[in-house]
Amino acid sequence: MIQEHQTQLRVRYDETDPMGFVHHSNYLRYFEIGRTELLRASGGSYRAMEAAGQLVVVVRIDCRYRSPAKYDDLITVHTRIARVTAAKIIHEYKIRRGDELLVEADVTLAVIDREGRLQRVPESLLEAYQANL
Amino acid sequence: MIQEHQTQLRVRYDETDPMGFVHHSNYLRYFEIGRTELLRASGGSYRAMEAAGQLVVVVRIDCRYRSPAKYDDLITVHTRIARVTAAKIIHEYKIRRGDELLVEADVTLAVIDREGRLQRVPESLLEAYQANL
Amino acid sequence: MIQEHQTQLRVRYDETDPMGFVHHSNYLRYFEIGRTELLRASGGSYRAMEAAGQLVVVVRIDCRYRSPAKYDDLITVHTRIARVTAAKIIHEYKIRRGDELLVEADVTLAVIDREGRLQRVPESLLEAYQANL
Amino acid sequence: MIQEHQTQLRVRYDETDPMGFVHHSNYLRYFEIGRTELLRASGGSYRAMEAAGQLVVVVRIDCRYRSPAKYDDLITVHTRIARVTAAKIIHEYKIRRGDELLVEADVTLAVIDREGRLQRVPESLLEAYQANL
Repeated sequence: MIQEHQTQLRVRYDETDPMGFVHHSNYLRYFEIGRTELLRASGGSYRAMEAAGQLVVVVRIDCRYRSPAKYDDLITVHTRIARVTAAKIIHEYKIRRGDELLVEADVTLAVIDREGRLQRVPESLLEAYQANL
Repeated sequence: MIQEHQTQLRVRYDETDPMGFVHHSNYLRYFEIGRTELLRASGGSYRAMEAAGQLVVVVRIDCRYRSPAKYDDLITVHTRIARVTAAKIIHEYKIRRGDELLVEADVTLAVIDREGRLQRVPESLLEAYQANL
Repeated sequence: MIQEHQTQLRVRYDETDPMGFVHHSNYLRYFEIGRTELLRASGGSYRAMEAAGQLVVVVRIDCRYRSPAKYDDLITVHTRIARVTAAKIIHEYKIRRGDELLVEADVTLAVIDREGRLQRVPESLLEAYQANL
Repeated sequence: MIQEHQTQLRVRYDETDPMGFVHHSNYLRYFEIGRTELLRASGGSYRAMEAAGQLVVVVRIDCRYRSPAKYDDLITVHTRIARVTAAKIIHEYKIRRGDELLVEADVTLAVIDREGRLQRVPESLLEAYQANL
């Protein structure tokens, strides 16, 4: 499993607000793209997990906003797997425009089934993630 | 079945763009609230239909934008059932700020099942809608 | 200034995801509505502040997700002013469906000018907020 | 000026709804990306136009939905300049997944100034667009 990954995004018009800045809620969507692409680069797929009834949900976000991204900016989402246990997966994110750090965050995920019951992180995912930690 | 309905909405900050206007895509979300509230006022529920496997999808939008709504504006979504057949339901919308007309649209809906196959508009809905036309 | 405020919201269809849950990023939008309505109930207005060149930005979010809201749920956003200094304003949020706690968060705001320079929290706002703490 | 352009997009999780389909409002956002990239490929920039006080707004959408896109689908937005006059610019869009046509639309744009007054389509843009029609 790859432990770090970078994805480039172009800021969309509808993602920006009257201040001309990316609305703060949209960075959470960028983080989600970051972890999806990290998993894809490792040969995995959230779509396949979801089809198999393993739903990955966010249980905590801690996000620090340093400087705003603007419309049409080219930004980089840097995603890193910080910690994996049987109960949760923590990713760290840094969003940059060139060398400038814009936003940093830790996002904690858990796995539930269709009835909302907490599940162990799937063994295959656990091994793959832990191999690099 | 009620044939016309009005819902008031307050424009949210994240719905507006760097011009200070509501992003044009968001009016489609306001229309959806309009028809949801019209159906609720008639004793129906899209949530219940969806739970029963009757998925209502948009098959056509024709939308004319006259004047933009802005952040924190109080706007009214006026929804009217224009035409109902076994194959489709057409609603007409007018969004106003006070007396000023901002946006007009016709939205055509169809009903499909979970496999995406086109269904007849449910008989109960058909009768209820047609009673007023 | 009012120190606590409650706003009721109906979950919109476009806010929910394939799991049938409100997408986690949308709670940040609900918090924004909560503080806007708290300020409005106190006679203030973010729209007026912004027109005066005082831009209020989010500098930190710490959000814990307990249980998901679903399409068409009626939820309550409970907003409380937790701490106000010359540099920042911290609100605490609790989102509930009936008595059930769904999401909790602390959101830290700062005030900047149009060039992005940090400003003192406006004196009027400071006094008003601190009167109740 | 390039008259046709194709952009590839990956459907994001937050763009899909409880049916598992892209919410119909999001295709309008995909169209906006299509025309932005067409203009960029021609050496232009909406960001630069907006900085110069030329605001491009949508005045009409006519959109036909054939088949839904789903989470994680790779889709292609095909954008074509259909007609340009001093008053408006019409683009045609076709969104496909592989060879399958999902959505078709005509979107009409106009240019306004910061006070909302209708402007002539800028001469440079007019000439560039018409060169290919």
